[in-house]
Amino acid sequence: MNVRGNLYIIAAPSGAGKTSLVKALLTHDNRVRVSVSHTTRSMRPGEHNGVDYNFVSMADFDALIADNQFLEYAEVFTNKYGTSRAWVEGQLDLGVDVILEIDWQGAQQVREQMPENISIFILPPSRAALESRLTGRGQDDAEVIKHRMSKAVSEMQHYDEFDYVVINDDFDLALNDLQSIFCAERLKRASQQRRYADLLQDLLSV
Amino acid sequence: MNVRGNLYIIAAPSGAGKTSLVKALLTHDNRVRVSVSHTTRSMRPGEHNGVDYNFVSMADFDALIADNQFLEYAEVFTNKYGTSRAWVEGQLDLGVDVILEIDWQGAQQVREQMPENISIFILPPSRAALESRLTGRGQDDAEVIKHRMSKAVSEMQHYDEFDYVVINDDFDLALNDLQSIFCAERLKRASQQRRYADLLQDLLSV
Ligand SMILES: Nc1nc2c(ncn2[C@@H]2O[C@H](COP(=O)(O)OP(=O)(O)OP(=O)(O)O)[C@@H](O)[C@H]2O)c(=O)[nH]1
Ligand SMILES: Nc1nc2c(ncn2[C@@H]2O[C@H](COP(=O)(O)OP(=O)(O)OP(=O)(O)O)[C@@H](O)[C@H]2O)c(=O)[nH]1
Repeated sequence: MNVRGNLYIIAAPSGAGKTSLVKALLTHDNRVRVSVSHTTRSMRPGEHNGVDYNFVSMADFDALIADNQFLEYAEVFTNKYGTSRAWVEGQLDLGVDVILEIDWQGAQQVREQMPENISIFILPPSRAALESRLTGRGQDDAEVIKHRMSKAVSEMQHYDEFDYVVINDDFDLALNDLQSIFCAERLKRASQQRRYADLLQDLLSV
Repeated sequence: MNVRGNLYIIAAPSGAGKTSLVKALLTHDNRVRVSVSHTTRSMRPGEHNGVDYNFVSMADFDALIADNQFLEYAEVFTNKYGTSRAWVEGQLDLGVDVILEIDWQGAQQVREQMPENISIFILPPSRAALESRLTGRGQDDAEVIKHRMSKAVSEMQHYDEFDYVVINDDFDLALNDLQSIFCAERLKRASQQRRYADLLQDLLSV
C-alpha cells in the first residue's frame, strides 16, 4: 500500500532564498515535487508557462475559483495566485511529498483544509542581508526598495504561524536543515507503520 | 539566553544496533550527550564503571530510589536500572540534548514526568536479521537464544508508544535518519524563537 505523501507549505519574504533552496531540495530528493501555481500576473523574462507558473487571465482565474478548483488562493499585491486542488491530491495519493510555495494568506487556508500539513518559514540571517538581496536585484530607486522591504516585513510577521523556522545564512546548511525536516517527517510513527506494515507483523508475532 | 536541550528516549530490542548508532551519533554531534544509567547488574568484561553504567549494589540502588534521585527506574529481568534526575536536568539546562537509552517501562515514566520528550524506537530490518544478531553474540544454546528472542519481541511490542520509528537496515542510512530527527527537532518554531530572539526582533521591526 502506498503511504500518502506529506503536504508542505514553505513561505518566506522575497529575498530569503526560498526558490533556490526548494530547487536544490528537489534535485536531491525525487520523492518531493513542487506545485506550480496559477497566477494572473504577467510572465517575466526567463519564465516559462507551466513551469514557473500557469499564467492565466483574470477571467480564467475567476472561473477556476467559481469551479472550486483551488485548494487555496490569495490576492498578493495586485495579482491573484492559487494552488490546484486536483494536482496536489493526486500527487499525495501517489505517495509524493508536495511543496506549496505560497504566501501567509494561502498558508492559513491550507491549514484549515488540510490540518496535517507541515509548514516551514525561511528567514534571512539579518536585516542588512535582506536589504542587500532586495536591492541587488537591479538598479531600482530608494522608494521601490523601501516598498519591497515593507512587504517583506509584513510577510515575516506571520513566521510564528509555522511549524519550523529555517534561517538561510549559509546555503548548504539551510539546505541540510530542509532535508532533515523532510527526512524526519517520514520517520514519524504513523508513516512508518503504513510503510513497514509487513515487517512489523513479522517482527511482532510471538 | 540558553535554549534548553531536548530530551530523547531511544529504545530498541537487544540486537537492533541501538548502542552503536547512538555512539556514532555522539561522535558527529557535540550538542548531544547520553545519560549513564545506574544498574545493579554486574559489570561485563570490557565495561567500565561510570562509562557504560554506574554499577551499584541493590542496597545503594534502593537508597537512591528512596531519596527520589531517579527520573525513572525499572526492573529489567532480574536487575534494576535507573536514570539520574539531577544529571539530566543539569545537561538540559546547559542547552545539551540528552539521550536516555532505556526500556519501554522507563519510557512510560519519562513521558509522564517530562511530556515534551521526543522518543525514537529502533527496529531490525527483519526477524531473520534479529535472530542472527542475537545468535551471533556467542555459542549459546537454542534455549538461551529463544529466550532472548522472546524478550526482544516483548520490547518491540511497545514500538507504537514512540514518536519516531527508525529501521536499522543499512547502518549509515539509519544514522542519517537519527541525525535528521535531532536536526529537525531543533528547527521547531519554539526552539528557534528562543535561539534567534534578537534576529527576529531586528527583522520584524517596521
Ligand atoms: N497564496 C498563494 N501565494 C502564492 C502562490 N504562488 C505564489 N505565491 C506568493 O506570491 C508572492 C509573489 O510571488 P511572485 O509574483 O513570483 O513575486 P516575487 O517577488 O518574485 O516573489 P518571490 O518568489 O517570493 O521572490 C510570493 O510571496 C509567493 O509565495 C499561490 O499559489 N498561492
Ligand atoms: N528503564 C531503564 N532501562 C534501562 C536503563 N539502562 C538500561 N536500560 C535497559 O535495560 C536493558 C538491559 O540492558 P543491558 O543490561 O545493558 O543488557 P543488553 O542485553 O546488553 O541490552 P542492550 O544494550 O539493549 O543490548 C536494555 O533494554 C536497556 O535499554 C535505565 O536507566 N532505565
